[in-house]
Amino acid sequence: MKQLQDKVMQEGLVLSNQVLKVDSFLNHQMDPVLMYEVGKEFVRRYAGEKITKVLTIESSGIAPGVMAALELNVPLIFARKQKSLTLRDDIIVEKIYSFTKQESNEVTVSKKYLSADDRVLIIDDFLANGEAASGLARIVEQVGATVVGFGIVIEKSFQPGRSMLLDAGYRVESLVRVASLQDGKVSFVEEEQEVPAR
Amino acid sequence: MKQLQDKVMQEGLVLSNQVLKVDSFLNHQMDPVLMYEVGKEFVRRYAGEKITKVLTIESSGIAPGVMAALELNVPLIFARKQKSLTLRDDIIVEKIYSFTKQESNEVTVSKKYLSADDRVLIIDDFLANGEAASGLARIVEQVGATVVGFGIVIEKSFQPGRSMLLDAGYRVESLVRVASLQDGKVSFVEEEQEVPAR
Repeated sequence: MKQLQDKVMQEGLVLSNQVLKVDSFLNHQMDPVLMYEVGKEFVRRYAGEKITKVLTIESSGIAPGVMAALELNVPLIFARKQKSLTLRDDIIVEKIYSFTKQESNEVTVSKKYLSADDRVLIIDDFLANGEAASGLARIVEQVGATVVGFGIVIEKSFQPGRSMLLDAGYRVESLVRVASLQDGKVSFVEEEQEVPAR
Repeated sequence: MKQLQDKVMQEGLVLSNQVLKVDSFLNHQMDPVLMYEVGKEFVRRYAGEKITKVLTIESSGIAPGVMAALELNVPLIFARKQKSLTLRDDIIVEKIYSFTKQESNEVTVSKKYLSADDRVLIIDDFLANGEAASGLARIVEQVGATVVGFGIVIEKSFQPGRSMLLDAGYRVESLVRVASLQDGKVSFVEEEQEVPAR
């Protein structure tokens, strides 16, 4: 998605070879018009997939998730990282390990809002090691529902998340694919490389 | 807001005299179309106020906040409850006490995204004791910016937050005002009572 790639180029800060900071439009300040475009792009890519629910994880997944859900006119569920006082019974809990924070967190979804006939689009802001993404997929599959695929705003393609999800048979649509953050510079995956000439 | 009040009536669960659970459309599962209507209603109420930024706090404020920001075509900032790895310098930190959780949390906003000429609409999902709301106002005022007012999805009018904010001179627009949760029943503030006959 050209518009989003330009935004990463203009405003993304490379903090290390692993960490890209996009606080100006995604992770702290948010560009709502861009988020709406992001939501619509996910819906375009998954057209015809009869999605019944969008699932994301708090907090930075909520804005792109709710925009996709608005465009699809289906509910958004956001998985909770902290145990809520009002979310107690009939919950699905999955442990998700964060490499950046070097700790495991329990992520919770209420069983009430997912059922076996749901077709779920999972949306997240970043895909790196794929721990959050696969944890969300396990939650969906625990109730017998179908993971239609993943919608990722920014993929760090030099980390193993994408391959892991593809190997597990999932569809992954990432709007921006970062090939490298070496030497303080963002470079992108050239999409031509994705479809080898026959 | 009639549509939202109906939703609270139909789907809200009264867990105690103090706690209303609205996990089906606001705090866990989210109704994106309703959230868009909520965002538009805030914008309608604050028409002409020349708002330049919307400020909210993760996580449940993000969806109504981003919808208002979309309608206004201004950025949304969401204050962070946990220290972010990529949010380190030039930050404003405020302590916010949670009566329900009985603990203080530090809430963080980057100075980069607020300036003295900003006119800020503060949006949150609930208003109860007003601790989060006044903490967000202190953040805005620390940089010399103006709090235009508060946009609250559900106000628990039997708790002191609203009076505290009004006494401090702020404008408060709450889309649903809950008068009481006594005996497991939700009752609403009759808006006629707000404007006494002369």
